[in-house]
Amino acid sequence: MSFSPLIRQLIDALRGLPGVGPKTAQRMALHLLERDREVARHLARALEAAMDGVGYCSRCRTLSETEICNLCADPRRDDSLLCILQSPADVWAVEQAGGFHGRYFVLKGNLSPIDGLGPEEIGIPALLACLEDRDVAEVILATNPTVEGEATAHYIANLLKPRGIKVSRIAHGVPLGGELEYIDGGTLAHALAGRTPIG
Amino acid sequence: MSFSPLIRQLIDALRGLPGVGPKTAQRMALHLLERDREVARHLARALEAAMDGVGYCSRCRTLSETEICNLCADPRRDDSLLCILQSPADVWAVEQAGGFHGRYFVLKGNLSPIDGLGPEEIGIPALLACLEDRDVAEVILATNPTVEGEATAHYIANLLKPRGIKVSRIAHGVPLGGELEYIDGGTLAHALAGRTPIG
Ligand SMILES: [Zn+2]
Ligand SMILES: [Zn+2]
Repeated sequence: MSFSPLIRQLIDALRGLPGVGPKTAQRMALHLLERDREVARHLARALEAAMDGVGYCSRCRTLSETEICNLCADPRRDDSLLCILQSPADVWAVEQAGGFHGRYFVLKGNLSPIDGLGPEEIGIPALLACLEDRDVAEVILATNPTVEGEATAHYIANLLKPRGIKVSRIAHGVPLGGELEYIDGGTLAHALAGRTPIG
Repeated sequence: MSFSPLIRQLIDALRGLPGVGPKTAQRMALHLLERDREVARHLARALEAAMDGVGYCSRCRTLSETEICNLCADPRRDDSLLCILQSPADVWAVEQAGGFHGRYFVLKGNLSPIDGLGPEEIGIPALLACLEDRDVAEVILATNPTVEGEATAHYIANLLKPRGIKVSRIAHGVPLGGELEYIDGGTLAHALAGRTPIG
């Protein structure tokens, strides 16, 4: 099948979206061309506007189109609690979960010496500068429960403890609604070791 | 969760793509912003270029960025065979399947009086004009095997038979590799009624 160049280029460009394979890209291109050209033009403008206008918050380093993001600018948030995450997606996830009212700091990924990602690269100096400016009582390490995430959490915990800041790690275990038989062994072992008294 | 306006607009615009729900749109927006801004700008340009440049072939009425599409312009195709379909997606599907070397004509959907789609609306006059110009020996009706698709096929068959054109319908039945127990009853009944001798 030889698509005409503009259609071929559109299908190829749509494949740049995560999770979009050749069949899906073809279906999307056809839908836009046949049914919804205004949707396509609107998407083109939204893409350009976001790529031009969205940068990073100078305080917490999450994605933001303003110098200070709306979470950092919100006077109702609790300055004494700082949650450290490893991507803006994690900030979105925690905000959507609700219940956390402190501040955030977003690392650029995890420590990974093999990939050349040391403390400097992932933003540790900026984290320390951010802690200097504020009266943080507790830092919650919410890096992912992976080998690199754990290593990053421990590295930061060791840096902060001498400064008299309480450091905690988010709990890991069986997800709510999860069935034990379908949970991986590592998670299950972690959940057992981390058991808490009830009653 | 309150996204900043540009991110919110990007997520909303991505939801205009078929099959993209809120979570997927969020993941796509994040991926583009965090990892691949060049991919996003490239997609924006490809969308604009395709919406501006792609129209319809004046002969077969499939999507084309030239007055005559490359299938109609190809001198190696067989002018005596004309396959009638109901969307450019169907042309793509038949071309990708391979094995058909005739010409195409694309209707604008199916006859559906309830929706105000009569012969005029779906392009029957243009089909007749196209048949006048050419020496077509056989018309293959490849509208979908739905109530409207069947009605459209029969309508066209009745129009063309008096003109001495051979009219055929694509075969319907159990898909290759399909397992009988998972095939819907209508298809199965059709496949049994349309049985062909072997050996
Ligand atoms: Zn911020
Ligand atoms: Zn054509």
